[in-house]
Amino acid sequence: MRNIKLTLAYDGTHFHGWQMQRGQATIQGALTDVLCKLTQERLTLHGAGRTDAGVHALGQVAHFKTQSQMTATQFQRACNALLTPEIRVVAAAEVTSDFHSRWYALAKTYRYRIYRAPVVPPSEWRYVLAYPYPLNEAAMREAAHLFVGTHDFASFAASTGSEEDDRERTTVREIFSSEVARTSGGDELVFEVRGRSFLRFMVRKMVGTLLEVGRGRLQPAGILRLYDLLDRSQSGPTAPPQGLVMVGVEYPAESKPSN
Amino acid sequence: MRNIKLTLAYDGTHFHGWQMQRGQATIQGALTDVLCKLTQERLTLHGAGRTDAGVHALGQVAHFKTQSQMTATQFQRACNALLTPEIRVVAAAEVTSDFHSRWYALAKTYRYRIYRAPVVPPSEWRYVLAYPYPLNEAAMREAAHLFVGTHDFASFAASTGSEEDDRERTTVREIFSSEVARTSGGDELVFEVRGRSFLRFMVRKMVGTLLEVGRGRLQPAGILRLYDLLDRSQSGPTAPPQGLVMVGVEYPAESKPSN
Repeated sequence: MRNIKLTLAYDGTHFHGWQMQRGQATIQGALTDVLCKLTQERLTLHGAGRTDAGVHALGQVAHFKTQSQMTATQFQRACNALLTPEIRVVAAAEVTSDFHSRWYALAKTYRYRIYRAPVVPPSEWRYVLAYPYPLNEAAMREAAHLFVGTHDFASFAASTGSEEDDRERTTVREIFSSEVARTSGGDELVFEVRGRSFLRFMVRKMVGTLLEVGRGRLQPAGILRLYDLLDRSQSGPTAPPQGLVMVGVEYPAESKPSN
Repeated sequence: MRNIKLTLAYDGTHFHGWQMQRGQATIQGALTDVLCKLTQERLTLHGAGRTDAGVHALGQVAHFKTQSQMTATQFQRACNALLTPEIRVVAAAEVTSDFHSRWYALAKTYRYRIYRAPVVPPSEWRYVLAYPYPLNEAAMREAAHLFVGTHDFASFAASTGSEEDDRERTTVREIFSSEVARTSGGDELVFEVRGRSFLRFMVRKMVGTLLEVGRGRLQPAGILRLYDLLDRSQSGPTAPPQGLVMVGVEYPAESKPSN
């Protein structure tokens, strides 16, 4: 069996998230349909992470095993020809048979865009949270740094489940970097976080908590107290999905293309 | 009566163009509905130009007369609160009573985006023509310059009508600048044209003709011959609407805000 790795970009606005669900438009469902048509096989498409309804991707990674003789590039072109323009295969490569998009992932990066100017351009409203009200951005920058390290993120979890696997019960996660910054243009405040893996809703709970800090309802150091509380009702609300985008997934060098 | 000037941005994807039509979603219709609700008046909204179905705007200009006591800024905020996010009032100003968005316009600028890389990002497909095939871009740049000046653009007109007014029968138009250039990122070829006014479909016929030049089916100098032919069947096809955006409209300094 050959193993094909796909790098995917999508606009999640009109999808019920990554994971296949009967009767719902999902990214995994749309791609699986197209791949089954192309290969005449009943294959399974595995994604690096399950993005929620309304969340976007620039570099989601998925893989599938096939007996088809199509090259990776042919898969990319054929998928893009058959898919809606809201989902694009931005890269495709044949990888070693052991590669697994979820289990081999070393790091994932997410970005959340907060639009600060009063008028959101019509081309951007699908991709940002509009928040033109006052925020203490310096406090938010300080708070964001406190996410770095290995912590119990139970206070930032959905009521159940991890993004990767519901069976994985620990809520301890390692965050490599976490920054809040203004974009060069200046109208956006962007939160970018890179970590080994994330709990379900974790990034959006982080953003909701950073907004509480920005509003002055929570001191930056309050983040540290949340690690001890292990109580999701004490952190900020889950920020809306449309501002979130999965930027990319990193893998060990040995899982690079085999050809 | 007070005279209010609005600067508008919109994503034209799901609209049947600017002009109000019974039973169709249009930009003029959506804005007029909102303004009538806000003022309790039966007012008329005049636009600088009628964009076609699927065409976008960054800086369309419109005006309306009202007896309402709302400030221009209040109109902006209230309109944006009531409109779909696909239409935004990006600026509003009270102007002298003689100002007319169409008749006072000194120049309009349009931009057409041609996406050259093979994969169009999911955030961009609504706003570009995807054309990843070979094009002689140097020839297109040369041809674009030949649009500058005062010419009879009958070969670049719709079968009937001017963008501004169907009663205006001349097909002579003055173009101030016309350029084809790669964007800084390098994946897009952008045609930008600035002129006093334009015939209906004129910019899209210009683009269709530039693409014929890029494909080698027409020499750049063929543009000059089209001015003499006065035959729209001899120019390139009308390029699809989604790549086109009305960038802005310029007015004499004396029509600047009165307050």
